[in-house]
Amino acid sequence: MYINATCHYLPDKIIPNSYYTDLIDLSDEWIYKRSGIRTRTKAGVDENTNTMSIDVIKSGIDRLPYDLKEVDLIVGATYTPYDTVATNAHAIQSHFAIARAKALSVSSACSSFINAVEIVEGYFATNKSRRALVVASEHNTAYSDDYDKQSGYLWGDGAGAAFISKERISEEDIEILDLNTTGLADVGKGLEGVYLRPNKGGLQMPYGKDIFVHACKHMVFEVDNILKKNGFTLKDITHFIPHQANARIIGNVGESLGLQNGQLIMNIEDTGNTGSASTIIALSQNWQRFKKGELIVITVFGGGYSSGAMLLRK
Amino acid sequence: MYINATCHYLPDKIIPNSYYTDLIDLSDEWIYKRSGIRTRTKAGVDENTNTMSIDVIKSGIDRLPYDLKEVDLIVGATYTPYDTVATNAHAIQSHFAIARAKALSVSSACSSFINAVEIVEGYFATNKSRRALVVASEHNTAYSDDYDKQSGYLWGDGAGAAFISKERISEEDIEILDLNTTGLADVGKGLEGVYLRPNKGGLQMPYGKDIFVHACKHMVFEVDNILKKNGFTLKDITHFIPHQANARIIGNVGESLGLQNGQLIMNIEDTGNTGSASTIIALSQNWQRFKKGELIVITVFGGGYSSGAMLLRK
Repeated sequence: MYINATCHYLPDKIIPNSYYTDLIDLSDEWIYKRSGIRTRTKAGVDENTNTMSIDVIKSGIDRLPYDLKEVDLIVGATYTPYDTVATNAHAIQSHFAIARAKALSVSSACSSFINAVEIVEGYFATNKSRRALVVASEHNTAYSDDYDKQSGYLWGDGAGAAFISKERISEEDIEILDLNTTGLADVGKGLEGVYLRPNKGGLQMPYGKDIFVHACKHMVFEVDNILKKNGFTLKDITHFIPHQANARIIGNVGESLGLQNGQLIMNIEDTGNTGSASTIIALSQNWQRFKKGELIVITVFGGGYSSGAMLLRK
Repeated sequence: MYINATCHYLPDKIIPNSYYTDLIDLSDEWIYKRSGIRTRTKAGVDENTNTMSIDVIKSGIDRLPYDLKEVDLIVGATYTPYDTVATNAHAIQSHFAIARAKALSVSSACSSFINAVEIVEGYFATNKSRRALVVASEHNTAYSDDYDKQSGYLWGDGAGAAFISKERISEEDIEILDLNTTGLADVGKGLEGVYLRPNKGGLQMPYGKDIFVHACKHMVFEVDNILKKNGFTLKDITHFIPHQANARIIGNVGESLGLQNGQLIMNIEDTGNTGSASTIIALSQNWQRFKKGELIVITVFGGGYSSGAMLLRK
C-alpha cells in the first residue's frame, strides 16, 4: 500500500504553559521538564472532531493526485468523538459528497491511527477498497479538565489524514512496507492507566508512572519486531516518529534504540499530546523532508493499553 | 468465514411502556402502535458497555469449541461507549487475559456489528487473524432522555457476540457467505437524522420520518444486492433478521420483500432498539432454530446514515 498524500490541521488557538501557571500554579519550567510541552493547540468553540476532520481534508485536497470522489473507504480514528453515531468518517462523506464510500470510525486510544490503517490493509486484501482515506482527529480539550494537575496540561487538539491506495500513484508516494497493532489490556494498569468515560469523569490519567514504564517498553518492542520481521536493523532507519505523549517517554525510547540527534521527529513542544492524530500530523508536517529511499518508522502506545508500529519507505 | 458460536446478554431490568405513561403521558397502545415495543431492557446502575461485553462472553464461553485464549482479534462495536480509551474490546482482553490479541472498537451507528465483521474479514484476508471475537454492546439508556417524547422510549440495552474463524470448526457453524457495508452520510438527513453527541445533548432522533424512508429503502436495497451478487433470489432465503429499530420499518421492509409469516425474526417487542447489538442478539436467540442448509439474511440501517447486509448459511 502507498500513502499518496498527507495533510494536517491544527486549530489557531495556542495555549501557553503560563495559562496553567495562572490557573493551577504549575510553572512553565515544571510543565516543560515533565512533558516537553511549551504550548498546545486548542479547538475553538465551534470546532470538534467532525469539523477538524473536514478542515484537514480541505487543507490537503489540492495535493491529492486523484479526485476525492474516488475514495471508496473512509476510516475515522478518534477517542474524543463529537458524535458517535454520525462519526467523523460520516462527516467527511457528507461534506464532500463521497457517495457509496464505506464509512466507520475506530478507537484503540492513541494507537487508533495505525489500527485504522490496518483496517484499510484488510479492505485492500479483500478488494473491497482501492482508495482509502484515514483521518485521525482528536478534541482532547472537550473531555479533559484544565484543573487536573496530574494530566490536564498535556492535551492538545488537531487532526491528520492520509490518502492511501493499493497501487503506487506517483514517485512522491510513501510505501507502507509493513504495520502491526497489539492489544495490551491485560498488561499493567491497562484498563485504568488512562481513560475517557464520557459520562463518568471524562479524560483522566491516574497512573502516569505505569503508562511511562509500559510505553517505553512496548514502543521499543514494536520497533524491534517490525524491523526484524522485515530484515532491517536500526541502522537502516533514517527517521523515527513516536507517539507524541510526553517528551520524557520519547527521550527514553530514543535512548533505548540508540538514536542519533535529528532522527527523532517531534511536535509535542508546540501541540501537546494530540492523541491518535499525533504521528500522522508529524508525518504530514515533515513530508517534504523525506528523501527517496529513506526508511521511516512510526511507533505508538496508547491507553487501553495498545501499541503498534508502521514501517515506511519514501 | 464461519460463526462458531454466538451469545447474548440482556440486563435483568425490564421497563414496560407504563413507565412512560406515568412519566410523559405516552400510552402503551400509542407506543406499541408506533414502534412495536412493549418492554425494553435497561442496564443496571453498575452496568455499562464494558461490563455487558464481559457478561455476554461469560454466557457463551461454554459453547465455544476452542479455548478463549486462542482468540487473536477482538473487535468491539458500540456507539454508546462507557470508555472510548479502554474500549469494550480492551475490557474483554483484560478480564479474560487474552494476551497479544489485537483490540479495537468501531462505530458506524446501528450498522456497527456488520462493519466489525467486515473488519474481521479483512484481518482473515491478510492472515493476521484466524480466530476473531466480535462483540456489539449498547448502553443506549446511558445517553438517551426518558423525557424525550420523540424517541426516549425506543431504546434498550444489551450485548451480543459472535466467535468467528477462518475455517469451519464444527457442523454447528454458520457460514458467512458474503457481507457488505455502505456509508450513506450524503443521503437525506444523514448526519442529523439521529445523533449521539456525548457533550451536546446525548442520543436524539430529530428526523424520524427521514430515517423511516431511508431505512425502508436501503435495507431492501442491501438485501436485493447481496442476493443478486451471490446468485440467490428471495425464495431461497428462509430467515430474515432486520435491524430492530422499529416494528413499522421492519413491517415495511418485509412487505417490500414479499416475506411470509414466520420469516421475519424479531425481538424489538421485548428489548426495544438495542442498536448495533440487535441483530446479533436475534441471531443468538434463534441459533437452535436454524436447520442445516437454510439461508439467513441480516440487513441493517443506522444513523450516519449507514447500511449493510450479511448472507449466512447454516
